[in-house]
Amino acid sequence: MEPCPIKMLAFDVFGTVVDWRSSVIAEGEELGKTKSINIDWAAFADAWRAIYRPYMDKVQNGELRWTKLDDLHRMMLAETLKKFDIQTLSDDEKEHFNRVWHRLKPWPDSVPGLQRLKSRFVITTLSNGNVSLLTNMAKHAGLPWDCILSAENVHRYKPAPEVYLLAPQLFDLKPEQVMMVATHEHDLKAARKHGLRTAFVHRPLEHGPGKKSEIAPTEPYDFVAKDFCDLAQQLGT
Amino acid sequence: MEPCPIKMLAFDVFGTVVDWRSSVIAEGEELGKTKSINIDWAAFADAWRAIYRPYMDKVQNGELRWTKLDDLHRMMLAETLKKFDIQTLSDDEKEHFNRVWHRLKPWPDSVPGLQRLKSRFVITTLSNGNVSLLTNMAKHAGLPWDCILSAENVHRYKPAPEVYLLAPQLFDLKPEQVMMVATHEHDLKAARKHGLRTAFVHRPLEHGPGKKSEIAPTEPYDFVAKDFCDLAQQLGT
Repeated sequence: MEPCPIKMLAFDVFGTVVDWRSSVIAEGEELGKTKSINIDWAAFADAWRAIYRPYMDKVQNGELRWTKLDDLHRMMLAETLKKFDIQTLSDDEKEHFNRVWHRLKPWPDSVPGLQRLKSRFVITTLSNGNVSLLTNMAKHAGLPWDCILSAENVHRYKPAPEVYLLAPQLFDLKPEQVMMVATHEHDLKAARKHGLRTAFVHRPLEHGPGKKSEIAPTEPYDFVAKDFCDLAQQLGT
Repeated sequence: MEPCPIKMLAFDVFGTVVDWRSSVIAEGEELGKTKSINIDWAAFADAWRAIYRPYMDKVQNGELRWTKLDDLHRMMLAETLKKFDIQTLSDDEKEHFNRVWHRLKPWPDSVPGLQRLKSRFVITTLSNGNVSLLTNMAKHAGLPWDCILSAENVHRYKPAPEVYLLAPQLFDLKPEQVMMVATHEHDLKAARKHGLRTAFVHRPLEHGPGKKSEIAPTEPYDFVAKDFCDLAQQLGT
């Protein structure tokens, strides 16, 4: 037995657990049919997501006071609708479409992989998504989290240290007993900086088809996995 | 359809979902056998629990700064061990026994009732227990929470308004769309004061056998149920 075994796995969610892009495209296309809006919904999804970091930065740098991700998504949606010159959605339709982020579909291995990992570890979200978004998503997609931890708990977005340290602090663990699982290297690098262990998971389709081949990460991490089932295998669950 | 239907059920945990008393007694008796400690473990459990509110009051009135329930339980355990003149436990044994609160057993109807209620409502803890205590308990007992909300999230203990308002605030609900479920009337009265709906659940055995008969609550609540399956039935799930 290693001296300081991993007790808890903390997961990035958008891209790592759920396929945000295809989910937003699918709902966009449905909405487009209903409302006769003929645009490239893949381009729309990419444009909506492209301003994710800039909007969170407005909170980080104090330009906006603490604003939960649902409300940032709503502002980002308004900007994206304007960009695509879509003016025919009612407030209720916009509100419903904005909550597509509560209804994102998991990658095929996410639920079975998490079920296996849950048998040995405490599994939690550690996401910039707000608590209700993550809870509703889990309910919708059948994600078997042990608990929901969010940037909203500390009113700071990743990569703020408070978010990464939330898991060890709440669970009386050393940072190295918690492993961050993500497909984004910037997230893993920040987690490692604060003492967490790291697992990189390949998600070559996050930004769409045509990138099926797995590109090796630029730095070494404690684990590198093809998907959650592979990670479970490597962790002996 | 009523104009403002209930969306979320927020549960008190100790006594309402789990049978703390028989769980503490059972682990105490095991410990007693191992360590040759011959005391009345029912009396021990009752004494440990009896100083629950006084210790939380030390936090509420500022005598102690914010202290999570695990740490209050540990202080309360020290006081109770002293009262029973038990001096033979190692620090590790005390630490393990203190975490009996993470291993409490559910009432027989808790898991099947929550499964039914979860099919229609978001079900959350709303407990003075800390996040890790509630998470570990859920994992141990198979409690299928959608999320774990705790006094620890706001660093105030019930009946502080912040605890009751946490659920509607995080989920963008009106207080009356959230229903507090508890077996303790003081909890329900405080929840109602802050606009939540209320369900009283009978737990005649919380304080031990010999009180099997259900005593009607002293005030009317939105629902009064024999157990969680009865509540599920009344709510049409």
